[in-house]
Amino acid sequence: MSSSTGPSPQAADLLARAVDIATANAGESGGPFGAVVVTRDGQVFEGVNRVTADLDPSAHAEVVAIRRACQGLGTFDLSGATLYASCEPCPMCLSTALWARIDRVYFAADRDDAAAAGFDDARFYRYFDGMPEDRAILPVERIGLPDDGHTAPFVAWGRNDRRIEY
Amino acid sequence: MSSSTGPSPQAADLLARAVDIATANAGESGGPFGAVVVTRDGQVFEGVNRVTADLDPSAHAEVVAIRRACQGLGTFDLSGATLYASCEPCPMCLSTALWARIDRVYFAADRDDAAAAGFDDARFYRYFDGMPEDRAILPVERIGLPDDGHTAPFVAWGRNDRRIEY
Repeated sequence: MSSSTGPSPQAADLLARAVDIATANAGESGGPFGAVVVTRDGQVFEGVNRVTADLDPSAHAEVVAIRRACQGLGTFDLSGATLYASCEPCPMCLSTALWARIDRVYFAADRDDAAAAGFDDARFYRYFDGMPEDRAILPVERIGLPDDGHTAPFVAWGRNDRRIEY
Repeated sequence: MSSSTGPSPQAADLLARAVDIATANAGESGGPFGAVVVTRDGQVFEGVNRVTADLDPSAHAEVVAIRRACQGLGTFDLSGATLYASCEPCPMCLSTALWARIDRVYFAADRDDAAAAGFDDARFYRYFDGMPEDRAILPVERIGLPDDGHTAPFVAWGRNDRRIEY
């Protein structure tokens, strides 16, 4: 699965698989989203939306597939992997892919398709764009702590010789 | 925990608690981050970074605390809750808070403090700002499917009378 020359011949098939499991999930108990992760060595891991089934707002299809791939490979680093998503990953899923060091993302439907179906993906992208009326849904504020207390975790981290960077 | 009049008198204490558990976690096996969720009815749920311990790139402190709060309350909707984070939530954590319908976020250290300690939070915020050199780390591309196949999951969703919206 090359990550430097655009979609491979198999990419459309893998994306179609993500859409198929999304469609199946939508007719059962979950949201209409599916994802497939193909790791550097060609292993395939799938995920569907489990938010309402698992009572977990983070259980989007992409996050579920990424978690499964990490468990399957025994690592938190999916460098070299490609993510196929039935719908454009929301900011949460895209950020999870960034932290997982995934190389490339392909998607089928986009944030506007999701919005038309009643989902907030496009709205949350606008939140990151910083539109004031969108930021109002979740105000984020810094509070100062006495004596530079906010840096204590990073100081402890720097002193921990057994720390595992990620 | 008012969400309309700024930090409550207890806010600094709750934030200090998030910093304390972050510091403890940094000296053990996890990343130097901690979070506290206070639900609408005053229940308190805590989380620390578990990325390397659980081999889960999504297991940031805030996400862990949100998952625990949802499990504790038996819901995927934390409307009325406040999130206290030892460090400014990264885009993944902020998006998870959005999907969880959290009302307000307070934090201590910020993305630049995290960057100084070697973490990519600030870089990933730049990714969302769309700087070309930052977007290059994770290209995202739409692939068209035949016969409008990309909308099949949403069609199935619309037809599912038992669907649970989130």
